[in-house]
Amino acid sequence: MVDLTQLMENEVFMAFASYAAIILLKMMFMSSATAFYRMTRKVFANPEDCTGFGKGEIAKKYLRTDDRVERIRRAHLNDIENIVPFLGIGILYTLSGPDVSTAVTHFRIFLGARIYHTIAYLTPLPQPNRALAFLVGYGVTLSMAYRLLKKILYL
Amino acid sequence: MVDLTQLMENEVFMAFASYAAIILLKMMFMSSATAFYRMTRKVFANPEDCTGFGKGEIAKKYLRTDDRVERIRRAHLNDIENIVPFLGIGILYTLSGPDVSTAVTHFRIFLGARIYHTIAYLTPLPQPNRALAFLVGYGVTLSMAYRLLKKILYL
Amino acid sequence: MVDLTQLMENEVFMAFASYAAIILLKMMFMSSATAFYRMTRKVFANPEDCTGFGKGEIAKKYLRTDDRVERIRRAHLNDIENIVPFLGIGILYTLSGPDVSTAVTHFRIFLGARIYHTIAYLTPLPQPNRALAFLVGYGVTLSMAYRLLKKILYL
Repeated sequence: MVDLTQLMENEVFMAFASYAAIILLKMMFMSSATAFYRMTRKVFANPEDCTGFGKGEIAKKYLRTDDRVERIRRAHLNDIENIVPFLGIGILYTLSGPDVSTAVTHFRIFLGARIYHTIAYLTPLPQPNRALAFLVGYGVTLSMAYRLLKKILYL
Repeated sequence: MVDLTQLMENEVFMAFASYAAIILLKMMFMSSATAFYRMTRKVFANPEDCTGFGKGEIAKKYLRTDDRVERIRRAHLNDIENIVPFLGIGILYTLSGPDVSTAVTHFRIFLGARIYHTIAYLTPLPQPNRALAFLVGYGVTLSMAYRLLKKILYL
Repeated sequence: MVDLTQLMENEVFMAFASYAAIILLKMMFMSSATAFYRMTRKVFANPEDCTGFGKGEIAKKYLRTDDRVERIRRAHLNDIENIVPFLGIGILYTLSGPDVSTAVTHFRIFLGARIYHTIAYLTPLPQPNRALAFLVGYGVTLSMAYRLLKKILYL
């Protein structure tokens, strides 16, 4: 059997695995936050979710939208739109054998930018806080894509 | 040339590849279900999609939303929110060299939970069926992230 | 330390990395397009985004939806729904040691289909242009999943 653990002896790979796992845990936190606000504010999207809070017409009034919940959902969707490219391009960049410190710098900046983006979205902080956080994360992914394609482009 | 097939001789990797492919096929099924209900119920989001069903004002009335279609779309989005972390954390966990039976147990429970989640969402089954299915899948991903980070954390 | 660059000497892997990076860059372009139309058309989802365009009631009127922006967002979400399965199944298919020309043909058709899908969605072109583009991309992913599972199924 192949010893896969040798891949995990590669420093860039270990770093990518760590940052990717943390950024995904941050993204999963958005699901919990949505559920928390839906429960505490009694704001639901499905009739079957309301039945614990009353019957018939009483329950139906909880089928509504709420600014707070919609804000978290937008932040969550923005996470997906940005974290999917980071993961896809990031793992390929990692496997292309980049310099350790350059790679780790990319991962660190991306993680910081996305955490700041979440804080800026949920507080909310005045613009351009959120826009800058978005652009920094976007720039990191573009930079990894450029370095990857420069090294291995094969069409 | 490198013989990549050796990676596929690793049992955990083969198992992850199998479960990941099946869970993604399940997620792709949601696209088909949305298209099916849009066509049979004549519920569309784009003007150009309605032209086969009439002209001008007659076609425009099909630009509407429908409970059934919106329900599938919510189930689909929930899949994306949960399957993306599973895939990202799961492949890294797989490469960190876990015990075969522990890893396969994680994958099996996740697949079962997500299939049950889809059934609970689309039937719909009364709560807490869907909530529990969501939590089980969420817990599996958290467990893989914990095991991965405990072994390789490198920041 | 393990020399990861050997993975990048594998032709199928280099091809997958190239196509995956390009398709993700195309998907990231949708974020830029959304931001561009939100700014030029003054259509925002968050109160804090409008403050540069006036104060109080004047700013609030920019909290609205717009056909153009919603169309791009639907195209973006459709990208996510289709590109996530392509990436997940695609990398596993790549690692299962497929024939180079067969694999590259899959990647090329998928990239072409998704670019055409975006053009058909944003122009918009009359149906069935967009539907066919969607189906071709969907079929490529199904074909890779079938070839992968036929070779390595391990449950």
